[in-house]
Amino acid sequence: MKAKVAVVGYGVIGQRLADGVARQEDMELVGVVDVQPTLAIRALKDKGMPYDLYAAAQEFIPVLEEAGIPVSGTMADLLAQVDIVLDATAAGIGKKNKEIYQQYGVKAIFQGGEKNEIADIFFHGYANYNQGVGKDYLKLTSCNTTGLIRSVDCLDKTAGIEKIAITIMRRSADPGDTHRGFVDLAKVEPVPNHQAVDLMTIMPHIDATGLLVHFPMTHGHIINVLAKTKRKMTKEAVLQVFNDHPRIKVVKIADGFNSNTALFRYARNLGNPRGDMYEIAVFAETVAFSGDDLMYAINIPQEAVVIPETIDGIRAALKMHQNREEALAATNQYLRLE
Amino acid sequence: MKAKVAVVGYGVIGQRLADGVARQEDMELVGVVDVQPTLAIRALKDKGMPYDLYAAAQEFIPVLEEAGIPVSGTMADLLAQVDIVLDATAAGIGKKNKEIYQQYGVKAIFQGGEKNEIADIFFHGYANYNQGVGKDYLKLTSCNTTGLIRSVDCLDKTAGIEKIAITIMRRSADPGDTHRGFVDLAKVEPVPNHQAVDLMTIMPHIDATGLLVHFPMTHGHIINVLAKTKRKMTKEAVLQVFNDHPRIKVVKIADGFNSNTALFRYARNLGNPRGDMYEIAVFAETVAFSGDDLMYAINIPQEAVVIPETIDGIRAALKMHQNREEALAATNQYLRLE
Amino acid sequence: MKAKVAVVGYGVIGQRLADGVARQEDMELVGVVDVQPTLAIRALKDKGMPYDLYAAAQEFIPVLEEAGIPVSGTMADLLAQVDIVLDATAAGIGKKNKEIYQQYGVKAIFQGGEKNEIADIFFHGYANYNQGVGKDYLKLTSCNTTGLIRSVDCLDKTAGIEKIAITIMRRSADPGDTHRGFVDLAKVEPVPNHQAVDLMTIMPHIDATGLLVHFPMTHGHIINVLAKTKRKMTKEAVLQVFNDHPRIKVVKIADGFNSNTALFRYARNLGNPRGDMYEIAVFAETVAFSGDDLMYAINIPQEAVVIPETIDGIRAALKMHQNREEALAATNQYLRLE
Amino acid sequence: MKAKVAVVGYGVIGQRLADGVARQEDMELVGVVDVQPTLAIRALKDKGMPYDLYAAAQEFIPVLEEAGIPVSGTMADLLAQVDIVLDATAAGIGKKNKEIYQQYGVKAIFQGGEKNEIADIFFHGYANYNQGVGKDYLKLTSCNTTGLIRSVDCLDKTAGIEKIAITIMRRSADPGDTHRGFVDLAKVEPVPNHQAVDLMTIMPHIDATGLLVHFPMTHGHIINVLAKTKRKMTKEAVLQVFNDHPRIKVVKIADGFNSNTALFRYARNLGNPRGDMYEIAVFAETVAFSGDDLMYAINIPQEAVVIPETIDGIRAALKMHQNREEALAATNQYLRLE
Repeated sequence: MKAKVAVVGYGVIGQRLADGVARQEDMELVGVVDVQPTLAIRALKDKGMPYDLYAAAQEFIPVLEEAGIPVSGTMADLLAQVDIVLDATAAGIGKKNKEIYQQYGVKAIFQGGEKNEIADIFFHGYANYNQGVGKDYLKLTSCNTTGLIRSVDCLDKTAGIEKIAITIMRRSADPGDTHRGFVDLAKVEPVPNHQAVDLMTIMPHIDATGLLVHFPMTHGHIINVLAKTKRKMTKEAVLQVFNDHPRIKVVKIADGFNSNTALFRYARNLGNPRGDMYEIAVFAETVAFSGDDLMYAINIPQEAVVIPETIDGIRAALKMHQNREEALAATNQYLRLE
Repeated sequence: MKAKVAVVGYGVIGQRLADGVARQEDMELVGVVDVQPTLAIRALKDKGMPYDLYAAAQEFIPVLEEAGIPVSGTMADLLAQVDIVLDATAAGIGKKNKEIYQQYGVKAIFQGGEKNEIADIFFHGYANYNQGVGKDYLKLTSCNTTGLIRSVDCLDKTAGIEKIAITIMRRSADPGDTHRGFVDLAKVEPVPNHQAVDLMTIMPHIDATGLLVHFPMTHGHIINVLAKTKRKMTKEAVLQVFNDHPRIKVVKIADGFNSNTALFRYARNLGNPRGDMYEIAVFAETVAFSGDDLMYAINIPQEAVVIPETIDGIRAALKMHQNREEALAATNQYLRLE
Repeated sequence: MKAKVAVVGYGVIGQRLADGVARQEDMELVGVVDVQPTLAIRALKDKGMPYDLYAAAQEFIPVLEEAGIPVSGTMADLLAQVDIVLDATAAGIGKKNKEIYQQYGVKAIFQGGEKNEIADIFFHGYANYNQGVGKDYLKLTSCNTTGLIRSVDCLDKTAGIEKIAITIMRRSADPGDTHRGFVDLAKVEPVPNHQAVDLMTIMPHIDATGLLVHFPMTHGHIINVLAKTKRKMTKEAVLQVFNDHPRIKVVKIADGFNSNTALFRYARNLGNPRGDMYEIAVFAETVAFSGDDLMYAINIPQEAVVIPETIDGIRAALKMHQNREEALAATNQYLRLE
Repeated sequence: MKAKVAVVGYGVIGQRLADGVARQEDMELVGVVDVQPTLAIRALKDKGMPYDLYAAAQEFIPVLEEAGIPVSGTMADLLAQVDIVLDATAAGIGKKNKEIYQQYGVKAIFQGGEKNEIADIFFHGYANYNQGVGKDYLKLTSCNTTGLIRSVDCLDKTAGIEKIAITIMRRSADPGDTHRGFVDLAKVEPVPNHQAVDLMTIMPHIDATGLLVHFPMTHGHIINVLAKTKRKMTKEAVLQVFNDHPRIKVVKIADGFNSNTALFRYARNLGNPRGDMYEIAVFAETVAFSGDDLMYAINIPQEAVVIPETIDGIRAALKMHQNREEALAATNQYLRLE
């Protein structure tokens, strides 16, 4: 029997979670929840309601129906039908929703904007799958941390990582955001950034710190990683480890992959839905050494990067796979990540 | 028998022309031409070569093959098989290519970057289809002019346009461009802009002028149009004319369509390939009057807007339809523009 | 005896008002008021406290003094010493402050962010000086409206303006703003914009409408104006009227003044304090005609443009000059606007 | 007798070099050289020709005079009067100019855009003053390297630096540039960046590497530095070393210095000419440790940062001071760097 899944909050992440779950042949996306006829909801309607929409509460039905959006019921109706909820609401709302999920006895996975306390486990498919198995409430790492841990975890499993220092160059808005953003500036945050702290929560054997700077751009974050490995690796070996990872794409600046937007343009031209990429990219020409320490720069496609690890979370929470490798392989297969 | 079409230059416009032609059931895209393993060509390969690639000349084959790109021959080989070429090369190259097209006796449609002299007719599907019928060499209007004429032509046919004054707020780079762009500025060009001049070439009964200003953005141009109509129209009538146009989408700021990027985000979420839109959009709340003069603001999606009118051009040049309405209807039907 | 002036709110506008008043030989800047050790206040201290600082209330003194900022007393202490206050606080606070000003019997001039009701008269030095004479509470027009009216008023006095339609291309943040801004977009507002409405409030004989679009830039707004004049003017006559205006600078794109930032760079290189300009600029090559209607594009330096007209307001409110020309000449002379 | 100095190339850097030299009481700025009536030259005229202008060659005099710019002669006339030239021409032109300088027997200092071969010594006032003493041709480090070396040199002198790894977040245009820039992207360059290589040229005992990424901003670069020191320093000691440096300003994010633009705004508000800063800034809250390695982020004001070190170069080349400390102290005193 397929795992029955609901997505609550149909925004930038919620839409992509819904699409990602819909591609899993061993899961069923029963419905999505939202409160307003946003552009995302209008697009859902305009493409023929591939997913059933439920209103977060009775009071939201009129405004949705007024906009011509078919509503299948309330969130309560949906919760009664599912095994697990992917909560992609704005930060802080997940906490309130959790009480409802508990009431209906459904498990839930929250996104990185919520506080760690909301969940039984702060989760990353590759780094700590086993700790998520059978848990009721998982919290996913945020987009930067998710992508960062992918790259650190595979190196760690190969050569052992003692410490990392990262420089995160952050996009300040998503494409289309008209409620936030920056013009012509680099905004510097105090050290350490939360991503370093989060990484240490999940990978406590690694000492991590880092700087975060915001920039006026929308198409992905860039992280420069400086890592001290226990065993010295060659550049070729590092690239091989990244190449072998189904969720990491090694690209060459010389081939034209010279920016976060080159990757976005490539993904659009590839025909990927929304021009999204699930994979982080490593810029091959940035893999280098500072003394014995390894340096490499990665691109984090902030809109879609957390989808695979969230789906891993479903597999863990619902005990669909006891085994990490099996779980990851299933997610990757259905998302065609090779 | 299907019209046999080649696309020369597989860049931002060329890729979209190829996809647009491939959707026309009465046309056959025989192949595309390029010179280098650009990211666009790499994406073509990575999605399995849906179109055959020909090298612009023998000398370009090695570098393409070195990058693992399958090459089906040279441009000469392709020209021998087709009725018409869509030339989407960089400005100035079309002129050189024309000599080759002439040598092979194939018709050609050039994009807006070329000089008017290159063609027998400066063409817009809606405004002067009949003048293009049977011609050997057509030049399409540029993206802004194409979208602008769509909106002016339908008003002109309804109420007669005497003069227009436009303010073009121009994107300064395409998404992913790393070879040009502006930071934190508005660059002002002398009046009149070429779009006003171009419009008068195609619609000589209209007096047009306008200002063009460049901005640091990538997702579409905005044009504010002030038009003097012969017959006074109501706001409702204007919106009706725009609504009835298959290539114009009327959107409401109140619904969230408050920017060029809201339209891009919507198109991505709709599942449109590359997040493209063929339609220009009219922002409903900007339709207003200055005295008796009509004002309205439109969005021009610069990457895809010229595709439908270019396909109209194929229909005209190859005399697939003597009749304008029939030609437009066919293009619209295959592109699902209603 | 010199007019005694206080500036309340030492932000982007307040700092410039203080400097502008300090340059008026017939006025005395008694002090400025703020609440926090902002960077502007720190800069004031770091350049040796050219102006005395008063805390908005007793409670704000400790945090200021903790930061090493000398405080001369509270706003109440300052109000007891002045004839008039220039209120440059954030929108909405002026309303609360007005009650205090009334209590202390001092006149006040509010900036464009406040509602019109706050004041006895919505004021512009050139357009309606006489209506401000002797009034207790004036509200200045906002930056765009101030600059726009300058240009419209001088044409109106020369040739009569019947109607205008404007396209405002707005900066979305000031240089250095980290609390707001946009990335890579054009945000469109419903028509009409408030600037057109405001202009009609001050110049009720003109029919005005217009579109406002926000852009990711910080160094000035651009307005394209289309104006119907009662008497037809030549391009030369228009440029002459603008050239003769002490607060309008005619610049040539051909000379390199091709953008809002070219003007900012020029003003920096000229040695203007902060790189500010009090003058709006007209781009000479944009003066053109649409039929008989006049078109021209202006640059509005949003940080400093309202300073001269605010100082005019002091002259009006305190009846320093009954005569408009005399008042304007005095302000212009002290600000070296010729 | 005062050292007689010419500035050749009156652009972004040249203007600032001229102003900086003019402030040195033991130097005389004899004149500046340019070829066109640029906005910088127009500003020079509009502020009353504080410096005499010479045309680069006879042929450039007419176009300058036509624009109303007083010309004092040709570059040859100027070279006959000076001891040393500061060449701030566009990259590549310095090489051609060097032949002329040699012909006239004047020394010269070139900016970072020229190749190292042009000079006898690649120079930084703090790091290798002694090697520049008496040399004929010096080349200054570029803006990023100049600022970076300041911070590394003072740490090196205190605790010994073994290696550094840097992440440079680069502005892609200067304020006002309309000939280059980026929109909405992060452009990644291959590792190592030239700044790391340049630093090793000047400080060969340090192992350096790093990543450079371009961003759509204009008001300064940000560099994140990770440095391995021979002796472990405390955070307080690091801040003390930076605080003691006359050309380094330690700022607190908590005070509002949260971005490159906050510094620019502060400098404007401080009344600095053009809103410039000669000092690099260290963001105090970014001083941290990755294991034993020191991390800190600095701001590089690209327009003015190289001025002090260039003036140090004059002192070295002309043997005005044999002693490094004396030379630096003189430059700092006249530029009021404490």
